Amino acid sequence: MLRLVKSSKKVGLPPGTLVHVGEERMEAVRLIMIAYDEARFQEDEVEAIEACFPLKDKPGVTWINVDGIHQVDILERLGDYLSVHPLVLEDILNTDQRPKMEDFDTYVFVVLKVFGYDDQGDKMEAEQVSLILGPNFVISFQEKPGDIFDPIRKRIRNSKGRIRRMGADYLAYALLDAVVDNYFVVLEQVGEKIEFLEEELVTNPMPETLQTIHDLKRDMIFLRKSIWPLREAIGGLGRGETLLIGDSITIYLRDVYDHTIQVIDTIETFRDMISGMLDIYLSSVSNRMNEVMKVLTIIATIFIPLTLVVGLYGMNFKYMPELEWRWGYPMVWAIMLAVSVAMLVYFRRKKWL
Amino acid sequence: MLRLVKSSKKVGLPPGTLVHVGEERMEAVRLIMIAYDEARFQEDEVEAIEACFPLKDKPGVTWINVDGIHQVDILERLGDYLSVHPLVLEDILNTDQRPKMEDFDTYVFVVLKVFGYDDQGDKMEAEQVSLILGPNFVISFQEKPGDIFDPIRKRIRNSKGRIRRMGADYLAYALLDAVVDNYFVVLEQVGEKIEFLEEELVTNPMPETLQTIHDLKRDMIFLRKSIWPLREAIGGLGRGETLLIGDSITIYLRDVYDHTIQVIDTIETFRDMISGMLDIYLSSVSNRMNEVMKVLTIIATIFIPLTLVVGLYGMNFKYMPELEWRWGYPMVWAIMLAVSVAMLVYFRRKKWL
Amino acid sequence: MLRLVKSSKKVGLPPGTLVHVGEERMEAVRLIMIAYDEARFQEDEVEAIEACFPLKDKPGVTWINVDGIHQVDILERLGDYLSVHPLVLEDILNTDQRPKMEDFDTYVFVVLKVFGYDDQGDKMEAEQVSLILGPNFVISFQEKPGDIFDPIRKRIRNSKGRIRRMGADYLAYALLDAVVDNYFVVLEQVGEKIEFLEEELVTNPMPETLQTIHDLKRDMIFLRKSIWPLREAIGGLGRGETLLIGDSITIYLRDVYDHTIQVIDTIETFRDMISGMLDIYLSSVSNRMNEVMKVLTIIATIFIPLTLVVGLYGMNFKYMPELEWRWGYPMVWAIMLAVSVAMLVYFRRKKWL
Amino acid sequence: MLRLVKSSKKVGLPPGTLVHVGEERMEAVRLIMIAYDEARFQEDEVEAIEACFPLKDKPGVTWINVDGIHQVDILERLGDYLSVHPLVLEDILNTDQRPKMEDFDTYVFVVLKVFGYDDQGDKMEAEQVSLILGPNFVISFQEKPGDIFDPIRKRIRNSKGRIRRMGADYLAYALLDAVVDNYFVVLEQVGEKIEFLEEELVTNPMPETLQTIHDLKRDMIFLRKSIWPLREAIGGLGRGETLLIGDSITIYLRDVYDHTIQVIDTIETFRDMISGMLDIYLSSVSNRMNEVMKVLTIIATIFIPLTLVVGLYGMNFKYMPELEWRWGYPMVWAIMLAVSVAMLVYFRRKKWL
Amino acid sequence: MLRLVKSSKKVGLPPGTLVHVGEERMEAVRLIMIAYDEARFQEDEVEAIEACFPLKDKPGVTWINVDGIHQVDILERLGDYLSVHPLVLEDILNTDQRPKMEDFDTYVFVVLKVFGYDDQGDKMEAEQVSLILGPNFVISFQEKPGDIFDPIRKRIRNSKGRIRRMGADYLAYALLDAVVDNYFVVLEQVGEKIEFLEEELVTNPMPETLQTIHDLKRDMIFLRKSIWPLREAIGGLGRGETLLIGDSITIYLRDVYDHTIQVIDTIETFRDMISGMLDIYLSSVSNRMNEVMKVLTIIATIFIPLTLVVGLYGMNFKYMPELEWRWGYPMVWAIMLAVSVAMLVYFRRKKWL
Repeated sequence: MLRLVKSSKKVGLPPGTLVHVGEERMEAVRLIMIAYDEARFQEDEVEAIEACFPLKDKPGVTWINVDGIHQVDILERLGDYLSVHPLVLEDILNTDQRPKMEDFDTYVFVVLKVFGYDDQGDKMEAEQVSLILGPNFVISFQEKPGDIFDPIRKRIRNSKGRIRRMGADYLAYALLDAVVDNYFVVLEQVGEKIEFLEEELVTNPMPETLQTIHDLKRDMIFLRKSIWPLREAIGGLGRGETLLIGDSITIYLRDVYDHTIQVIDTIETFRDMISGMLDIYLSSVSNRMNEVMKVLTIIATIFIPLTLVVGLYGMNFKYMPELEWRWGYPMVWAIMLAVSVAMLVYFRRKKWL
Repeated sequence: MLRLVKSSKKVGLPPGTLVHVGEERMEAVRLIMIAYDEARFQEDEVEAIEACFPLKDKPGVTWINVDGIHQVDILERLGDYLSVHPLVLEDILNTDQRPKMEDFDTYVFVVLKVFGYDDQGDKMEAEQVSLILGPNFVISFQEKPGDIFDPIRKRIRNSKGRIRRMGADYLAYALLDAVVDNYFVVLEQVGEKIEFLEEELVTNPMPETLQTIHDLKRDMIFLRKSIWPLREAIGGLGRGETLLIGDSITIYLRDVYDHTIQVIDTIETFRDMISGMLDIYLSSVSNRMNEVMKVLTIIATIFIPLTLVVGLYGMNFKYMPELEWRWGYPMVWAIMLAVSVAMLVYFRRKKWL
Repeated sequence: MLRLVKSSKKVGLPPGTLVHVGEERMEAVRLIMIAYDEARFQEDEVEAIEACFPLKDKPGVTWINVDGIHQVDILERLGDYLSVHPLVLEDILNTDQRPKMEDFDTYVFVVLKVFGYDDQGDKMEAEQVSLILGPNFVISFQEKPGDIFDPIRKRIRNSKGRIRRMGADYLAYALLDAVVDNYFVVLEQVGEKIEFLEEELVTNPMPETLQTIHDLKRDMIFLRKSIWPLREAIGGLGRGETLLIGDSITIYLRDVYDHTIQVIDTIETFRDMISGMLDIYLSSVSNRMNEVMKVLTIIATIFIPLTLVVGLYGMNFKYMPELEWRWGYPMVWAIMLAVSVAMLVYFRRKKWL
Repeated sequence: MLRLVKSSKKVGLPPGTLVHVGEERMEAVRLIMIAYDEARFQEDEVEAIEACFPLKDKPGVTWINVDGIHQVDILERLGDYLSVHPLVLEDILNTDQRPKMEDFDTYVFVVLKVFGYDDQGDKMEAEQVSLILGPNFVISFQEKPGDIFDPIRKRIRNSKGRIRRMGADYLAYALLDAVVDNYFVVLEQVGEKIEFLEEELVTNPMPETLQTIHDLKRDMIFLRKSIWPLREAIGGLGRGETLLIGDSITIYLRDVYDHTIQVIDTIETFRDMISGMLDIYLSSVSNRMNEVMKVLTIIATIFIPLTLVVGLYGMNFKYMPELEWRWGYPMVWAIMLAVSVAMLVYFRRKKWL
Repeated sequence: MLRLVKSSKKVGLPPGTLVHVGEERMEAVRLIMIAYDEARFQEDEVEAIEACFPLKDKPGVTWINVDGIHQVDILERLGDYLSVHPLVLEDILNTDQRPKMEDFDTYVFVVLKVFGYDDQGDKMEAEQVSLILGPNFVISFQEKPGDIFDPIRKRIRNSKGRIRRMGADYLAYALLDAVVDNYFVVLEQVGEKIEFLEEELVTNPMPETLQTIHDLKRDMIFLRKSIWPLREAIGGLGRGETLLIGDSITIYLRDVYDHTIQVIDTIETFRDMISGMLDIYLSSVSNRMNEVMKVLTIIATIFIPLTLVVGLYGMNFKYMPELEWRWGYPMVWAIMLAVSVAMLVYFRRKKWL
């Protein structure tokens, strides 16, 4: 399930202490290094992070993707080599971060969240993705090997699109774009759940429906909390305040920014719709209760007076002239019929039937 | 029905890939070119987009209207010829855009939404309209042939108003104005639906009424989401930040801006009213339940004691002096009458009758 | 009733087309011209608008009040003579305007709304008032002859206060002040309705009460929508951005601005109070249902067991020793009495009685 | 009770007309003049306002406190002598002002509200306090003689604290501070009411509880409306924009500003808590209804089947073998007992008992 | 319990009067002085505050921690020696402060709140922590001896992390960080309570559940009120507006700022979730009532008609042919069985069973 509170695991430790906070999602950390320029392309799975260091000073773009962040020493050595601030390394390890962008002149640090439903499609899961963008390299950190960056790897391999002709800033943009595109996939799933629920609400509302509405609401609260700050982070990148990002890239970043706004709009819309569904659910519960009460009232209102009538002639008074009448018994039937019909007419006029 | 989430169809493709996202709403793309200045007027349906190219360099204003956007190659050739940024072409094709305005110095790009109810007047439909404004031309893209631009075509043809004396910026304004005016038509329909519903709520609320309120609410959420960003887009145009728009046009654009604000105000007002209707509906359901309960309570409260009385004298005890009384039976009637009257008086005093 | 949507009557017409949008509220347009300075005072009802033109160039202040705006040609001739922008004339004719202030250097244009309850005091009505302030003249447009400007006319006539010593800007201020003062009159009426309703809610809530609450809520939504933009409009005048308004007048305009804020505060307060009344209403409905249910439960709980007892001894078994007992019948009475008393004690302890 | 709307008494009068709007709260206006510097102290109740005039030009600080504002002529003479703008005098007389601060270079004008519960502690009452701060004098206006300024008077008399060493600006600060401190007194009373109500809600909710909640809510709406604008007014003074207020005083005014923010925070918190209490109340009403329904259902469900059984053997068929059985009657008792026990077990398993 | 209103204890006293407002939480005030630089470390519990004075002028950093603030004279002497403004001393003593930061050039004053649940884990408690940061010293004030600063003391003692190499500004940062980290501990506890409640809501909602929800809501209101202003205070420190805080420290303060935002986000998320739980609770109450009503209706609807049937043949008419029939009695049983089965089928089709 989604964790809502930052863990207290680190409370009391000095700032910059590198401790992995979060679930360990894979066994061994996997390092994949891709180096390319317009002519050249090289892709390697490296054992030790040190193997990546020489590439920093070569021409072209180097992209190091780190799957799994629980091996603290890798990060430490990388941080030492690139002179990354200890607080940044701490943020990468601590998977409870709020999305943000920080510009340290020689590198830019971005933290993002990636979402997805689990295999049953029931529970939303979140993963933290961090990026470090340098002059000619990008380092990305994921909690577990995921497929959201695969299309970009393929594009680089096949030299599709402009990616091979552009610098590290374009690569960083492409990664951001992939993350934001992923939100649309998740929102589409949420949209389908909402449509399914709306139909269920009309045809057959059940107490479980309420639980599902509540779960969706909770997911939306979580998504909102995690994506809202992204607006500011990507907006900051798109305004061209960062020297590491070229002018020609800002238009692309503004495009990602537009998509982020669209994601936020959609989340707000879903929130409104989900709270509307709650209203419908509650009112359908009321309507059902109304129906139940009507059945009770109709039955009771028709039969209780009839019961009085038959009870009346069950009395044992010595002097009850009706009991002696020849047509007494049929008369009772007639009275009962008349009362019933009168009641039914009354209920139909009240539109209860 | 209105789609609420951007399609995930494009996820993973490189930016600027031209893929049509949305329903295909017509068979063949239709290109209509109108060229005019104060003296001249020419209107042609052209086969190939290339036929429009020479006009760009002629004096006067050229308006190319493209109905149907699913033929990607037309857009590609147009984009190449006018050096439009690939991301703009992508935005035109992707019908899930958020309304926005972007200024690229040599041209201005505007995306808008047009709304309308379907033929049954039940479901709201949205269409995306894009405009490219150049120094002496306007290109408009619609998803399907619509009639919202017809009055402008007529005005140009008949040389009515100032449109023939003005430049391409005035034409762009006129198209924007037509789109915003269209919102008032839709809101008027919504207003009628609301008035109809309010009467229905008072005279005869039904479970279906709730569904209609919910549908209206959803439409309002959608309209709001789609029109709110327009404020900023048209505001940007009206502030005269764009070189392609002359100073004399800004006052017209401010007028359109005022109308947009009015549309947004009205949407907010409708939202407030619709949520007020929900309150009334829920309370009318409660009131009905109250009424049902009162009927049940009145009937039960009157007849259950009477049933006890008659049950009493249906007992078979050997020694029950009343059974032997001459006036026993009439006495029971008298008691029953007295109890009933007392109950009725009690209920009337409680204002239940 | 209040119209909430701008009419679609004008959709498709070129901007600046003069068409009256709104109800025609009087037969003939009435033009009243007042010209004054400290020494002089002249008041005339003129037939043709042209009669007013010469006064523009005379010293002193000229105030032309136009009651009724459906005669488009009057406005057209006036607009031509004063070189008023066609969009301004259009705004005067279109009675669905949002309050606003526009500064055109040679004149300032202000649109306002005036409110009032109809003669039955049931329905709120709105009227649009427009002002054009020039260097030495003010032209005011009203939809129907109203009395809100009468006190000002009287003050000018009687040379009361400083109005005769001041310029056209002071006159414009006085008119604005009269309009805003009028809001307090309307809000006082609303306040009385709210107080009346609150008492009704406590003493005798009825389904109609809900309708009245809803109507008030709707009126508040409407007032809010119409007065909120005024804040900005009058604030703009008071900040002294307009050359036509002298420095000595800005303090008066800030006073009007303060009153507008007070009006908006009061509207928000009323909205809060009205939604509080809805809560009380709904809870009083619940309380009544509770009371109804209690009566039913008390009656049923007392009498149903008794009915069982008497039914028991109505059985026809051959061997029922109790039936033969001498004190069987009184014993039944005793049992019934005991059961009833026990129940009553139970209910009293539960605080249902 | 608190008035929520500005009176319409003044509508139509020219601006600056001095008319007292509000209740007349005392018979004669009382003027108390205190003049002091570090060495000197003089306190007099003066008859005519003119007696205060000479002091203005003397060294030291003069504080004139006016209790009762309904004698318009006093204000007129004072205004004339000090050249106070007529709109300021009007604001002092009109007790429906919104709190505000206005800087007129030669004097600063501040309007405030003071609150308090009446003697029964039921109804909140408001009083308007106005201050005029000049270079070496402060004039304060109260609607009725109150004790909120008494501690300051005592401090001056006893030369306690720094007040005797400081100028008129410090005195004005001390008066503002006294007013804001008074809000804490009122809020403490409200807090006690809330705590009392919360306990009542848990132990014994009644329809009257709802009324009390509603009254508290209304008081909060009123307080909020009256104190919110104070933030801006005192903030303006504290930012040192006013020449009449020395730099050494701004830190004190920032302190008052902090207190005002705290008051507003507390009001918002109370609003949240009161609306939470409403939820609890409504849900406790639901819970009670539930309990009532359960009692009814349990009784009816147990006894109605039993009544059927006894009714069955009350039938008069000729051939009913059970009636002849020796153990028929005890058998009926056994059946009835079994049914009752089964029902009770069922209800216990459902957790209704 | 948490106090929501500032005490009125100080009302009427001159500003700067040192009076302790709040609970006295410990017997004697405890003063602990820690002096350190990279080489040196000294920790003493001192008796009199004067013992700390000489250290101010020594090199290195001095940290004086004051546990217990009710001994006013200690504060007075300290304030005199360091020339701290009386209003600051007053704020330290008054434990109802709103978190804030104030820069007095020679020192910076920060007020914070620390939260924790009591030993039963039921009631949230708040403590006020104040910091005075000078050029080479930090003075911290706590209401009672707490352990939140223990890890920092340990770090200094053990020379762990960079704390011994840095100045007083870093120490101040470390203290702030400890306070904000403490919020995560509290929020984690709240998160656990929420998860526990959510499960309880699904499995077994009870009236007490509502009370717990309400208590949590109240805690959240309180936390929000107390932490929201911290954002501004720490943001102000992090923007480097304060000369006493070195440039190298601002990145650390921005980190604390990020954590504060995260705390606020989480509080808002919890508020949303708690109000969602209230909806679920109310709806589960409705569902239960529905269930109760269904049981009643099913029982009544089945048995009341049967009772009529048996009552019918309990009548004593002389001429009732059915009574004489041989198969009359079994026929009644057959009818009753048929009616019951029909009812059950009807209820199953309605999905009530």
